[in-house]
Amino acid sequence: MELSEPLGLVVEADGRLKPATSTVVRHLSDMGGMYVDAGAEAAMIDAGDPLVYEVFQWDVPPVIGELFVCTTVLQPGKVGSEYFMTKGHFHEQRDRAEVYYGLSGHGQVLMFEGDRVEAVPIGDGMVAYVPPFWAHRTANTGIEPLVFLAVYPGDAGHDYGSIERTGFPEILLDTDRVPALIRRSDR
Amino acid sequence: MELSEPLGLVVEADGRLKPATSTVVRHLSDMGGMYVDAGAEAAMIDAGDPLVYEVFQWDVPPVIGELFVCTTVLQPGKVGSEYFMTKGHFHEQRDRAEVYYGLSGHGQVLMFEGDRVEAVPIGDGMVAYVPPFWAHRTANTGIEPLVFLAVYPGDAGHDYGSIERTGFPEILLDTDRVPALIRRSDR
Repeated sequence: MELSEPLGLVVEADGRLKPATSTVVRHLSDMGGMYVDAGAEAAMIDAGDPLVYEVFQWDVPPVIGELFVCTTVLQPGKVGSEYFMTKGHFHEQRDRAEVYYGLSGHGQVLMFEGDRVEAVPIGDGMVAYVPPFWAHRTANTGIEPLVFLAVYPGDAGHDYGSIERTGFPEILLDTDRVPALIRRSDR
Repeated sequence: MELSEPLGLVVEADGRLKPATSTVVRHLSDMGGMYVDAGAEAAMIDAGDPLVYEVFQWDVPPVIGELFVCTTVLQPGKVGSEYFMTKGHFHEQRDRAEVYYGLSGHGQVLMFEGDRVEAVPIGDGMVAYVPPFWAHRTANTGIEPLVFLAVYPGDAGHDYGSIERTGFPEILLDTDRVPALIRRSDR
C-alpha cells in the first residue's frame, strides 16, 4: 500500500478541514434511539430533522503508523434535556487512543470503559486524551457550534455498533443550565 | 504496563501545555553545528546563547496505541540567514507519522526522505502531516514565537543522531525576507 506524502491542511473559520477526503453529515434521524427521550427525538425529527454534526476528514492509508486527522462541527441543541452529541464509538482495535484539540465552543468528551465513565471538558485551547480501550463521544453544552480537531491511529477503525446496542452508562443532561452526568438506571 | 487514563490538558496563552510531564529547553549551544553558518552560531552563543525552543509534553506509556501530545514554542530569530529551527528527527520506528497543528506564529515544517525535501507551512489553524518515514523539523520564519501542537504514536521513539550526523539535504534561508529552501551542496 502506498503511504501518505507530506501535506498541509487548513481548518477554515467554520471548522471545516480542507482538503478533506471524506465527510460525515449526521442529522438527528441518523442517530435513531441514541437519545434517552424518544418522544422529544421523534418530535424533532418530524419538525425538520436538525443537523447534529459534521466530520471533515483527511483519509490516510488505514495502517499502523499513519494518523487520521479530522475536524468535527457539533451543533448546539438538546433532545429533551440531553445535549446534542456524536454517536460515539470504540476503536475496532480497542487499544488505540485518540487526541482531541478544542478549537471553539464548549463541551465535554464523554468516555467509558467497563462501568467507569469520565467526562473531560473540551473547548478552545483544551486537549482531551482518550486512552486505549475507552469508548468516546462528545457533547455540545454551549450555545454555539463546538469545533474540535481529532487525531487517531491509522489502524484504529471504528466500532459504532456496540454503542448503538448498549449506549453509554451515563448521559449528559442539562439540569437547570448545569451539565450533569446521570446514570441511566437512576432515571 | 499501566495504560493512560482519561485526561484534560490546556494549552496556555504562551503555548505551554499544562499539565506537562516533561519539558525540553534548547538554547543555541544545545544544537552545536546544526546551523550552516558556524561563525554566526559561535558569535551568538558567545553573546548570550539564546533560547531557541521549548517543548512541553504529556508523556504516555511508550507503547503502540497510545499517543504523545506536546506543544513546541519556537522563538523567532536567525543564525546568519538561517531561521531558528528545531533539531529535527526521524522516528526510531521509521514508519510512524506525526500531526502538527499550528496555534500561533508563522513557519514551515521541513521534511525529508531519501533525497526528497518538502516544506509545509504551519501557523494558526494549519495542519501539517508528517508521513511515515519522513524526518521532520520546524523553522520559525516570522517575528513572533511559533507555537504548535504535535501528536505522535506512543511507540514512535526519536532518532536525533541521524540528523546530527548528516543534517537535512536542504536548509531554509531568509533571502531578502523570503524563506527559500536551498540545497546545501549549492551554496
